[in-house]
Amino acid sequence: MLVPQVWSSARLGAKGLGRCLVRSLTGWASGEGRKVDIGGIYPPVTTPFTATAEVDYGKLEENIYKLGTIPFRGFVVQGSSGEFPYLTSIERLEVVSRVRQVMPKDKLLIAGSGCESTQATVEMTVSMAQVGADAALVVTPCYYRGRMTSTALIYHYTKVADLSPIPVVLYNVPANTGLDLPVDAVVTLSQHPNIVGIKESGGDVTRVGLIVHKTKKQDFQVLAGSAGFLLASYAIGAVGGICALANVLGAQVCQLERLCLTGQWEDAQALQHRLIEPNTAVTRRFGIPGLKKTMDWFGYYGGPCRAPLSTLSPDEEAKLHLDFTTNGWL
Amino acid sequence: MLVPQVWSSARLGAKGLGRCLVRSLTGWASGEGRKVDIGGIYPPVTTPFTATAEVDYGKLEENIYKLGTIPFRGFVVQGSSGEFPYLTSIERLEVVSRVRQVMPKDKLLIAGSGCESTQATVEMTVSMAQVGADAALVVTPCYYRGRMTSTALIYHYTKVADLSPIPVVLYNVPANTGLDLPVDAVVTLSQHPNIVGIKESGGDVTRVGLIVHKTKKQDFQVLAGSAGFLLASYAIGAVGGICALANVLGAQVCQLERLCLTGQWEDAQALQHRLIEPNTAVTRRFGIPGLKKTMDWFGYYGGPCRAPLSTLSPDEEAKLHLDFTTNGWL
Amino acid sequence: MLVPQVWSSARLGAKGLGRCLVRSLTGWASGEGRKVDIGGIYPPVTTPFTATAEVDYGKLEENIYKLGTIPFRGFVVQGSSGEFPYLTSIERLEVVSRVRQVMPKDKLLIAGSGCESTQATVEMTVSMAQVGADAALVVTPCYYRGRMTSTALIYHYTKVADLSPIPVVLYNVPANTGLDLPVDAVVTLSQHPNIVGIKESGGDVTRVGLIVHKTKKQDFQVLAGSAGFLLASYAIGAVGGICALANVLGAQVCQLERLCLTGQWEDAQALQHRLIEPNTAVTRRFGIPGLKKTMDWFGYYGGPCRAPLSTLSPDEEAKLHLDFTTNGWL
Amino acid sequence: MLVPQVWSSARLGAKGLGRCLVRSLTGWASGEGRKVDIGGIYPPVTTPFTATAEVDYGKLEENIYKLGTIPFRGFVVQGSSGEFPYLTSIERLEVVSRVRQVMPKDKLLIAGSGCESTQATVEMTVSMAQVGADAALVVTPCYYRGRMTSTALIYHYTKVADLSPIPVVLYNVPANTGLDLPVDAVVTLSQHPNIVGIKESGGDVTRVGLIVHKTKKQDFQVLAGSAGFLLASYAIGAVGGICALANVLGAQVCQLERLCLTGQWEDAQALQHRLIEPNTAVTRRFGIPGLKKTMDWFGYYGGPCRAPLSTLSPDEEAKLHLDFTTNGWL
Repeated sequence: MLVPQVWSSARLGAKGLGRCLVRSLTGWASGEGRKVDIGGIYPPVTTPFTATAEVDYGKLEENIYKLGTIPFRGFVVQGSSGEFPYLTSIERLEVVSRVRQVMPKDKLLIAGSGCESTQATVEMTVSMAQVGADAALVVTPCYYRGRMTSTALIYHYTKVADLSPIPVVLYNVPANTGLDLPVDAVVTLSQHPNIVGIKESGGDVTRVGLIVHKTKKQDFQVLAGSAGFLLASYAIGAVGGICALANVLGAQVCQLERLCLTGQWEDAQALQHRLIEPNTAVTRRFGIPGLKKTMDWFGYYGGPCRAPLSTLSPDEEAKLHLDFTTNGWL
Repeated sequence: MLVPQVWSSARLGAKGLGRCLVRSLTGWASGEGRKVDIGGIYPPVTTPFTATAEVDYGKLEENIYKLGTIPFRGFVVQGSSGEFPYLTSIERLEVVSRVRQVMPKDKLLIAGSGCESTQATVEMTVSMAQVGADAALVVTPCYYRGRMTSTALIYHYTKVADLSPIPVVLYNVPANTGLDLPVDAVVTLSQHPNIVGIKESGGDVTRVGLIVHKTKKQDFQVLAGSAGFLLASYAIGAVGGICALANVLGAQVCQLERLCLTGQWEDAQALQHRLIEPNTAVTRRFGIPGLKKTMDWFGYYGGPCRAPLSTLSPDEEAKLHLDFTTNGWL
Repeated sequence: MLVPQVWSSARLGAKGLGRCLVRSLTGWASGEGRKVDIGGIYPPVTTPFTATAEVDYGKLEENIYKLGTIPFRGFVVQGSSGEFPYLTSIERLEVVSRVRQVMPKDKLLIAGSGCESTQATVEMTVSMAQVGADAALVVTPCYYRGRMTSTALIYHYTKVADLSPIPVVLYNVPANTGLDLPVDAVVTLSQHPNIVGIKESGGDVTRVGLIVHKTKKQDFQVLAGSAGFLLASYAIGAVGGICALANVLGAQVCQLERLCLTGQWEDAQALQHRLIEPNTAVTRRFGIPGLKKTMDWFGYYGGPCRAPLSTLSPDEEAKLHLDFTTNGWL
Repeated sequence: MLVPQVWSSARLGAKGLGRCLVRSLTGWASGEGRKVDIGGIYPPVTTPFTATAEVDYGKLEENIYKLGTIPFRGFVVQGSSGEFPYLTSIERLEVVSRVRQVMPKDKLLIAGSGCESTQATVEMTVSMAQVGADAALVVTPCYYRGRMTSTALIYHYTKVADLSPIPVVLYNVPANTGLDLPVDAVVTLSQHPNIVGIKESGGDVTRVGLIVHKTKKQDFQVLAGSAGFLLASYAIGAVGGICALANVLGAQVCQLERLCLTGQWEDAQALQHRLIEPNTAVTRRFGIPGLKKTMDWFGYYGGPCRAPLSTLSPDEEAKLHLDFTTNGWL
């Protein structure tokens, strides 16, 4: 039987506003009761494809190599930006494996292992752990959203967390799933020793604040799911972010983190303001096709998406470009 | 290369209201330009599971055998009621194969082959055809719904229809997908020789009427996606229905069809009225757990769902029962 | 104290499908327990304005005079098409009074009397009755929709119906109110002797059917709130319609009614199909500005709307025109 | 003709994070181009009613008197908490007049003057100015939300601002209106000399940040529309809040403001966390009935709402109480 590990970690003031953040990973490998610290910024990396829609592992490795110099806490693979619903199980594992091999050793690898059924999610999570994932990001199952009650979702995540050899991060992304993981379910799940946090992509900071408040005793960590509300999330108690925008403006997103953690709120605000439109452009407005096109502009490999995601029209591309130029990034 | 077949069929007045329907399948196997007639009633069968969540193929065959005596036009496997997102690829194909073997030879087998990516959908469709599916029911991909524009969806379905050896039926089910296949996309797709119709589950009869109206010259057929608006759909030009309720009240749904097709609208209305609450109960209100519980009551094998779908609470079960008893069905 | 009258009426088979409808108004003025028959087609007339945004009562009377030759059951004033939220209380009453004076004596005048508060609605309803309204159409209050529970809405309508000297028609129009009057509230309210029916504008025929089914013993009548789903509503048990489109294609909407009531469903379907796009154009797509522009084309006075409703752009106007020409109406 | 005044104001660092806020009103009465500073906290006061649903002006004055000792920037009357849709025009003006007379002279009185039509809004705004309002809060008209395009809304607000003798504050409250004032419309309107800011009640801080960013050169001020996201709004550039919760926990909301403005973010966060549930309870969860019940508990006069708003059930009241006790406020 699988025995989940419970990680210890010196969580060094990630929640401490107005103080300088110093992280240590010494506690990552072993421990006796505290949950692992996952605070920090992560790019949810894209999955590069060739012109014939094969996964281009070479380009993936090149991208990771380039991103490796930015002070990220780690990488997320197969978040929504990774086109995970378009990958086969074999591809999903191979992507994890490749990223693990080329990424810096001191960074965390969080892998999206969510599937619709509980059993498939458990199997994918275990397999991803075996090929090198440090933690699993598990999206809410959503096809039968009318029946995805708190009870059903608590069952699902508890089962996955019970059987996962790596810590589990909940993933709430209503824009994709049409479903909001109820706060009461989050609070219940925060008490599980192997559930360490949540990626919250809905953008509702009242909800973020409430989750932080109600899970205060659980060592439970909230990561903002987008760079658009990163400052506000830090202000209310989040400890990091998994931000699509970090694939192209990674250093800037990390700088925003640093400004928040060191209490330089005026500068933080100015920087945050300039990131909102670019962030919306590569997420809600133009999706992964927009993000990949922007990656091409910024020296990474973007390339095509798998169908039915299509490339941008020239008009869309012009608008995307404008969202970066008007904010001084291109 | 795969060459899609274009079916001929004597479409015998399925749209003719006030006249008796006589169907012939003589045209099913070959033809020179007309699309195959898919008019009629289909139960979207459930996938039975054992107590340990294995697919119970024996129970599946028993259910099909029992349903075989009802004057259905055929069977749908892996519609939304079939828990298709919870099945492996191997299970999906095995289910099609088993149903094909035990179902009456003169009925149609429509198999849900939709996946998120275009390529996976093509492969699943081709494989399902090889194991005996007569037509493919293809749900709209939806995870990246913000980018599922008309253009993207037209590309997706055209590609699938181009490469499918069997006719394709579009499947619009906004309650599950959070997405409405735009009418203009439906109209464009109706012109494809290998796209024969749509299962419309949204319940908007204005939309149903508009689709029938705008595709009049295309031999394109609309099937109601639920028994709740079956009469109204017939009245406005639909030619059949794929109705979860037909798993438990199959004879009654077929009787409603007959009343509509023979112009007995007063009796049809009275029957339709008594089916609305039971239909809502086994779909939107209590989902597949409700449908399976009801199957147990009506002499079929319902059994458990795969997680995270859970069984009904005693309170829910009582309400479900009431929806059938107050309408005289239990 | 106000004593509500309870009307008697020979409801002559308005629900009888496949039979010819013969209406009598002899029972309209007095009675002993049956609710008044409101079956039939009504145009919800627009409120004409001068170039300086004054109500143009002369043009109103001209429009009513022209519409008077069409076999409508009556007129609705201050439905959503009447821009009622833009009228003062004095204007609202004057409009009712004027229409009463010029309209044919044998037709019904239903006046929209809904306000946000219960008390204001009661007062408006009583006043409208005094100046000639035969029945009151009462929209759901909606600004505090989060608190408009079944209990609150049942209270509101019961109070209005208790104190109204004329019969009350419920009015459900979620596109404007963001609120769906719950079916259980409708069923409860149908038992009130002074609540005679509902204008149902949501377009959900399953809901229409359920309401007809659950109120069968209450003499309660459902009117379709739009010409787009008029046939389907008749098929499922509605007895008429209040249709914006009847302001411009009144004879055609009445012909559709006749075809449904006499069981000529094939012709009805063909006609219904041609009305869907024009109907959508003058309601959801281009709103009252679209309806008024079309009135100008069809020989009525449309004229401007009150601000903030603005006139159509040339591009919108061209699309509006196309929706009528492609269906053979212009 | 009405000539709008343009106010000057020493806007003293309301946006300055990490610095102490010192406000001066010396600039309020005259000026040469700068917009009036509206930064600070306001309770949107409720309208008290007697048991027979008359406005209880005496209780209103008592409440204002009690609230007068709290360091609010001023008062808002006839925001959503004021049940303005339930008041007659005469009552609306009388409420403004009464509050003006009893409130401290150095505070601002912002009056909700929005109506559905542009003309009615202009008239109400002018009248409210005449009886003592310092600024007008104008909610988006919403009944015809399908036609409330940017163009229509820009026209509406421009007309109102042109003709208003007092500064105009936009009011975006999608939970009540079902409408989001588009950001591009806000940006255009921010350039009007008589439009000084927006009350943003949607809770989307990304939107708040974008508005602050895109209106930077316009002296345009954002007020958070709820205490639930007040800290986050300050962090991203808002300068105050109009918060229903300030009717009962006014000192605490002002303390939260002070902590934000003086850069004490850790204490601010702790306080913000404890305010989220009480805030939700008196807004989205239990509405004005919840707010008024809580006012009774805190020594103010709450009393009944006008129908159709109803009082809380005992069960709701217990839950409301719990939301305050679990956070240490009762």
